[in-house]
Amino acid sequence: MLGLMQDWPLTVDKILDHARSWHGDAEIVTRSVEGPIVRTTYAEVHSRARRLSNALHALGVAPGDRVATLAWNTARHLEAWYGIMGMGAVCHTLNPRLHPEQLCYIINHAGDKVILVDLTFAPLLLAHRDKMPNVQHIVVLTDEAHLAAANLPGLLCYETLVAAQADDFAWGGFDENTAAGLCYTSGTTGAPKGVLYSHRSNFLHTLVTLGGDLLGISSRDVVLPVVPMFHANAWGLSFSGPAVGAKLVMPGARLDGASVHELLESEGVTFSAAVPTIWQMLLTHLRQSGGKITTLKRVVIGGAAVPESLVRAFQDDYGVEVTHAWGMTETSPLGTESNPTAKTQALDPASQFRLKMKQGRPPLGIEMKLTDDAGRLLPHDGKTSGHLKVKGPFVSKAYFGGDGGDILDPVGFFDTGDVATIDGYGFMQITDRAKDVIKSGGEWISSIEIENLAMGHPKAELAAVIGVRHPKWDERPVLLVKLKPDETATRAEFLDFLEGKIAKWWTPDDVLFVSDIPLGATGKIDKKVLRERMKDYMLPSAP
Amino acid sequence: MLGLMQDWPLTVDKILDHARSWHGDAEIVTRSVEGPIVRTTYAEVHSRARRLSNALHALGVAPGDRVATLAWNTARHLEAWYGIMGMGAVCHTLNPRLHPEQLCYIINHAGDKVILVDLTFAPLLLAHRDKMPNVQHIVVLTDEAHLAAANLPGLLCYETLVAAQADDFAWGGFDENTAAGLCYTSGTTGAPKGVLYSHRSNFLHTLVTLGGDLLGISSRDVVLPVVPMFHANAWGLSFSGPAVGAKLVMPGARLDGASVHELLESEGVTFSAAVPTIWQMLLTHLRQSGGKITTLKRVVIGGAAVPESLVRAFQDDYGVEVTHAWGMTETSPLGTESNPTAKTQALDPASQFRLKMKQGRPPLGIEMKLTDDAGRLLPHDGKTSGHLKVKGPFVSKAYFGGDGGDILDPVGFFDTGDVATIDGYGFMQITDRAKDVIKSGGEWISSIEIENLAMGHPKAELAAVIGVRHPKWDERPVLLVKLKPDETATRAEFLDFLEGKIAKWWTPDDVLFVSDIPLGATGKIDKKVLRERMKDYMLPSAP
Repeated sequence: MLGLMQDWPLTVDKILDHARSWHGDAEIVTRSVEGPIVRTTYAEVHSRARRLSNALHALGVAPGDRVATLAWNTARHLEAWYGIMGMGAVCHTLNPRLHPEQLCYIINHAGDKVILVDLTFAPLLLAHRDKMPNVQHIVVLTDEAHLAAANLPGLLCYETLVAAQADDFAWGGFDENTAAGLCYTSGTTGAPKGVLYSHRSNFLHTLVTLGGDLLGISSRDVVLPVVPMFHANAWGLSFSGPAVGAKLVMPGARLDGASVHELLESEGVTFSAAVPTIWQMLLTHLRQSGGKITTLKRVVIGGAAVPESLVRAFQDDYGVEVTHAWGMTETSPLGTESNPTAKTQALDPASQFRLKMKQGRPPLGIEMKLTDDAGRLLPHDGKTSGHLKVKGPFVSKAYFGGDGGDILDPVGFFDTGDVATIDGYGFMQITDRAKDVIKSGGEWISSIEIENLAMGHPKAELAAVIGVRHPKWDERPVLLVKLKPDETATRAEFLDFLEGKIAKWWTPDDVLFVSDIPLGATGKIDKKVLRERMKDYMLPSAP
Repeated sequence: MLGLMQDWPLTVDKILDHARSWHGDAEIVTRSVEGPIVRTTYAEVHSRARRLSNALHALGVAPGDRVATLAWNTARHLEAWYGIMGMGAVCHTLNPRLHPEQLCYIINHAGDKVILVDLTFAPLLLAHRDKMPNVQHIVVLTDEAHLAAANLPGLLCYETLVAAQADDFAWGGFDENTAAGLCYTSGTTGAPKGVLYSHRSNFLHTLVTLGGDLLGISSRDVVLPVVPMFHANAWGLSFSGPAVGAKLVMPGARLDGASVHELLESEGVTFSAAVPTIWQMLLTHLRQSGGKITTLKRVVIGGAAVPESLVRAFQDDYGVEVTHAWGMTETSPLGTESNPTAKTQALDPASQFRLKMKQGRPPLGIEMKLTDDAGRLLPHDGKTSGHLKVKGPFVSKAYFGGDGGDILDPVGFFDTGDVATIDGYGFMQITDRAKDVIKSGGEWISSIEIENLAMGHPKAELAAVIGVRHPKWDERPVLLVKLKPDETATRAEFLDFLEGKIAKWWTPDDVLFVSDIPLGATGKIDKKVLRERMKDYMLPSAP
């Protein structure tokens, strides 16, 4: 027997419809790529997004076609998202930090038909246009004057296209499982693979993340998404902001400490989300400038390990509540957040802080388990490390084009590639990437845990730990350190620093000082490159 | 092109699975029908609910069968919900406040196969058992000792049934549109009609209401659902509590001020929801006893008009934030809530209070419009009254068995039967029920607005306004007043009291003092009965 409730497909155009109808004059403030701060509203964004749908239709875009964006967080980028998704096309967010060759590979693999690009990145696309045979149009997210000044022959002007159309495009009307977005994972192994979001998955991710144990934003918030829309959906904020009608503050291209601080204060931002690097830059700026934080209440940090000192500084010195989140492109992206529960709130402050530094707990909608190599369940004791696997309505079941084959286990869980523990309070902590975990004598050593400790050494600017082959133990850890400018240090200084903080057998067999540590397109240490560099290295401890 | 995200049907068993896995030791505390306070956990409730599924299966219950409950808010009732819904049967919540004849009608109309009943109501069912030919088993939600003491021949013992089974029933595995719950609207006109919830509608209602602009509860809350599970799903709290793993405090049969206050304080309740009567009883108790409120932070009030004085007392005297909600059985039930937005938070306190007293704003997932009799859209100016219509994934599209025929307008909106205004901030205010609105000279007079004003008269215990036929104006309002004990008053006192508060032409043509005003099963004034009583009444103003 079926229920008798209404058929109301979960399509993301309804999110912007809601913002238009009930929060039509709430602002979207952008630091534009052209320079000035520009202001618009949900009503205007809705109208312009529907004009864009008409414009794309006129350019030949049909439902299911991929339309790419290569853009900063701006109101125009938001219009592009809804204009593309609302008409049933697929919004493919490109990461401008990728190498041009990789960008071309992804554009071709996705079969992008049109690309909407910020002025900043248009010359790059133009230079490589001959390597993208399927791309029929490149539209620059600017007006005629700026387009003319930039000298970009053959590229179209966004404002002109939008102005020529009526705002009468009828969005939606398709199955909620229709593809809405495409985002390639930067893939530290193999070629990048495409995650193909559906309207349903985005809509459900939005509802779940609005809960008080995750983002918990409301119509009373002013939200600054520093995390890019091209980086796993800006952690969903491009959907959840409009879903509650929150004022949005879009930082455009300027993510330095001074620029972010200026927006926080001038726009009364209450909530923000970004990777640790951004918060570190902001903190450095605040300390140097003596600047204050007056309206910001909460920040979510994710995407990489968060230094304790950073969290303490925001909380203790600036009164900003910090929570830690974990997720990945394949989880839409939020999978866990480290908000306290009634039970953990009753713990002593030190224990609470330890839990806060973990990646946190899954909401309803994310099933999560730890397994050993054979897929057997491991205990949630906070000690046992295992493969972290997840299941849910906003988790990938396959990659675009079938790349990577079957990616789910026999009971439908996706292997995140992360190695983690889960404690008795349900807090998950990533201990490593599965491919970076060091297998020494049949036991696992967390490269990330040693790295994070080594980063705490006052002379270290960056630290990385990789496993190198060992004839007896299979693998042993080696620590690579990039020192701060004008510092010198010895191997012994770092080994002494680690002593007592990790198990004896986790102690790196060697410490190497290097002039740089390579980072990938999302700002994480690129261990694939490191391992390649170290392939001829011989352990001093090897016989 | 379809997305490549996982197929994960939205079935409500996953809500309790989540509570078991991630909040297994969070408590459910019940004031049991037998008397003592009893404590259990989500892990135990989950286990016992699965045992119950096995027990129901053994009794012959198959997917799609209706299993009714006639019970207070208790942990056993929660087990019953999930045990019934998890196996694909339909949980039909019966309202014990209905007249036995009406109960029998509903039980037969629904085709209930099994009824789970509290000790309190078991004698009633037994007395009318011969009028329920389809009911195969009646299970009393108690243990053998209490069942024996109650002398209820032929009724089964819940604890015995549950104890005999393993907790291995495999829940779910069906379409998310499968029927999960059935609740009859008490229907002030015609026979009661059944609202048939689906797993999907309940799941989506849960996610939506967890947002910060509606209930906004989290794992840090201790939730006391005073609103009954048989009254429109306890406003979803039986789902949203487990969804976030909040400790639940179930008040059982005792809803008087002293009992509710005792639970609030002894269990550290932070959030509660109830109709105004409950809050009024609690307030009276607090004032009489000098009791304090120490942990309660927020209450949601709905189901009837809320007196301003009640809201002010909770906020000003006890520091409890009050919000107003609106909904109905057909909307699962929450449709709006009067939480502030960034914009309304900036208004002066008096304006904010006026908005708080309205029914509030719809979340993403509820489309809402005002129309005239011909279905034309009316402006959101806070003045124009119109028919309130809603659309969304947790709004009814039809009643059980097709009763009432086609209930949606040509664009899929359900007519709530309420008359309302919507202001420029998006706040909706119910001004009347469509069938109670008084149509005088082609204009509408709100019976509810006059009633609410008249209730503010210090001598009034209860007031009702109905329209009576008038040869010239079609209808004119008449005020019926039940005075407080030992009070006397004149017609002029009430008319003077209303003067200046309403338009001149809204002034009732007569004031009648009555010894009682009939209430329906959900505690609202039964105007159908009032109109019947008044059918021979002649207006003094009629020629």
